[in-house]
Amino acid sequence: MNIQNYINTIAKCSKPADGVTRLPFTNEHKNANQLLKKWMVDAGLKVSLDAAGTLIGKYISPNKNSKTLLIGSHQDSGYNSGKYDGIMGIILPIIALKEINRKKINLPFNVEILAFADEEGVRFPTALMGPRSLAGTFNLKDLKLKDKTNISIENALKKFGGNPSKINLLKRNKKKLLGFFETHIEQGPVLESKNLAVGIVNGISGISRFKLEIEGYASHAGTTPMHLRKDALAATAEVIYTVENIARKNSNFLATMASIENKPNSVNAVSAKSISFIECRSVDDLKRKRLEKEIIKKVGIICKKRNLKFKLKKTYNQSAVKCDNKMINKLKKSFLNLKLNPFILMSGATHDASAMSDLCPISMLFVRSKDGLSHNPNEFTSEKDMQIAVKVIEKFLINYN
Amino acid sequence: MNIQNYINTIAKCSKPADGVTRLPFTNEHKNANQLLKKWMVDAGLKVSLDAAGTLIGKYISPNKNSKTLLIGSHQDSGYNSGKYDGIMGIILPIIALKEINRKKINLPFNVEILAFADEEGVRFPTALMGPRSLAGTFNLKDLKLKDKTNISIENALKKFGGNPSKINLLKRNKKKLLGFFETHIEQGPVLESKNLAVGIVNGISGISRFKLEIEGYASHAGTTPMHLRKDALAATAEVIYTVENIARKNSNFLATMASIENKPNSVNAVSAKSISFIECRSVDDLKRKRLEKEIIKKVGIICKKRNLKFKLKKTYNQSAVKCDNKMINKLKKSFLNLKLNPFILMSGATHDASAMSDLCPISMLFVRSKDGLSHNPNEFTSEKDMQIAVKVIEKFLINYN
Repeated sequence: MNIQNYINTIAKCSKPADGVTRLPFTNEHKNANQLLKKWMVDAGLKVSLDAAGTLIGKYISPNKNSKTLLIGSHQDSGYNSGKYDGIMGIILPIIALKEINRKKINLPFNVEILAFADEEGVRFPTALMGPRSLAGTFNLKDLKLKDKTNISIENALKKFGGNPSKINLLKRNKKKLLGFFETHIEQGPVLESKNLAVGIVNGISGISRFKLEIEGYASHAGTTPMHLRKDALAATAEVIYTVENIARKNSNFLATMASIENKPNSVNAVSAKSISFIECRSVDDLKRKRLEKEIIKKVGIICKKRNLKFKLKKTYNQSAVKCDNKMINKLKKSFLNLKLNPFILMSGATHDASAMSDLCPISMLFVRSKDGLSHNPNEFTSEKDMQIAVKVIEKFLINYN
Repeated sequence: MNIQNYINTIAKCSKPADGVTRLPFTNEHKNANQLLKKWMVDAGLKVSLDAAGTLIGKYISPNKNSKTLLIGSHQDSGYNSGKYDGIMGIILPIIALKEINRKKINLPFNVEILAFADEEGVRFPTALMGPRSLAGTFNLKDLKLKDKTNISIENALKKFGGNPSKINLLKRNKKKLLGFFETHIEQGPVLESKNLAVGIVNGISGISRFKLEIEGYASHAGTTPMHLRKDALAATAEVIYTVENIARKNSNFLATMASIENKPNSVNAVSAKSISFIECRSVDDLKRKRLEKEIIKKVGIICKKRNLKFKLKKTYNQSAVKCDNKMINKLKKSFLNLKLNPFILMSGATHDASAMSDLCPISMLFVRSKDGLSHNPNEFTSEKDMQIAVKVIEKFLINYN
């Protein structure tokens, strides 16, 4: 069994592109689902397509009235993206279940592998329709949203074989669910830096963004002494330096300033205005809020000291999602059984699991990505790492109860 | 005598503009020279136009073979500029000489007031033709340089009444000169901050510029831990902060970072590249070179610590010009005679005096500018400050020997 073959085969279901371009409800999506269906059937799964266009493969327990463990990720990609993002979280569990099926192991719960249509949000101006439909959080009005060629989600989904009018019936009964488990390429350099194939995710970061406008006073760089300057760029530089230091001193917290606009941006005129953005991420919302306050305070101190006016406005906020401790512990056991280091890391990016957290407990397994590359044609996970991930998933399922 | 009237009258010799727009060898220049000529004649000066288009008013000493003190500044402005920049350095000395003439004071040296055509370099891609012709440093090839409407300096000058073919004869014999003295609006906030009407310039800054390119690595702001980032913008921010601190800690030295370009400049992607400029100014070239070295060293340390590649390239260098100590001392005496604080400051901007320093000793008098405004229609010097400046010039001339 060579997993890289699965990855490479389904990567061909793409628009002609450098990398993979597979948008939801397209012919490429249809072709990808045909492959997934075949692989699901080979693994002993019963395959269906739900009203929201999610392909589902069920491994049914012989135990009557048993609960269900949901597993999955998204089939779609961005433009010219990698071969692993999303799709690996469908293929690896199929392979694990195929192995369980081959060994004729009965599980005391049902498993459903979910191949969601759209997580990237690239074709339509929304995303996560599949998991949101299951969680009952999908806004039916969004069916009217259109892609660039003026096709609505509703029409695209109908043509694809879904049933927009029945999406509202998809909501699952959480009492019948054990949880949702997602495997995903890390999209970052942490596992590589620790020399680990796989890691256990403790949560998905909350995110906040602030727009910072600092008002200076344009003056001649040759005739304005340092102490009489009102230098917006220098103040912003001090903020960037300070924000970075706050983030460095605090674990489980990221702060990024990566966008800046400076006026007049002339080599010999002291900066009159500087607009920048501060982004904060943490799996710990309380910690994030505490450090946001610290940053806001520091910005105030820096601007006051420099006698500069500023505006600092929160432009975005998204709460963190914690992974379920019980599920994390089950994953840890699987790691230890396989003599793997049960390394914990956070997810800085959003995933299908984020939307599924509105329905049931969630957990995630990350697989090492070479050079931390993501949304890039050169995204890569090795065969060996994927084999290890399959083993973890297999152990996780076999020992779940 | 209301000096503001002179200023306002000649300010009308302008293209229709918010502020003054008077470019060299234009009708506006002709009109301005007509006024200057009239005022020079009223002051007892003998007026002529030299081959390079410099209007000259001579106050001739009765002493035979006496040396000459040159005084002056430029008649031209930038686009939509102030009413004082340049022209004030012609008008105030005319008024001072008019007063000396009124009092029938003979000076033991000749005085020439020079109204240079072009210091701003706005019409043609060169500047300082007048003083450079006197110093013998004007490059005759520059006569072929053209303005936006394709008129060469040569043709514009001819039409204006100059004589391009005789520019090479303008070079003065330095043995017959006492020096060059220029009065100019400060174009900065120093005198205002000290609550002083006038100040004595100790020199004109040398300038160097460096282009700094820092190479980072674009990565996901959510998935890249702080310690694994290669953040070009954060490194540049640390450089800006450091350079500002070096400048703050050293007197008679300015360092400015006011231009920045960041890539990809996306709120959630760690900066992959940042291009910025460092400008250093000082009247003390040795000090400037020493601090440039300190800055270069610090840039290296910051980038090394962050494991980032960088390029730092000097793109511009201009040596400082020192004002003549003897002339400074004569100015100091005039200040003390008038019970003024003989405050010393540097010039961060270039002036006609910069080019004249290749010919003879130079000195400058700065007059307070409101809010330090320069190259701005709201540029302002008060009547009272100009009256004080005229008194200083008068004393300076009467007590020169």
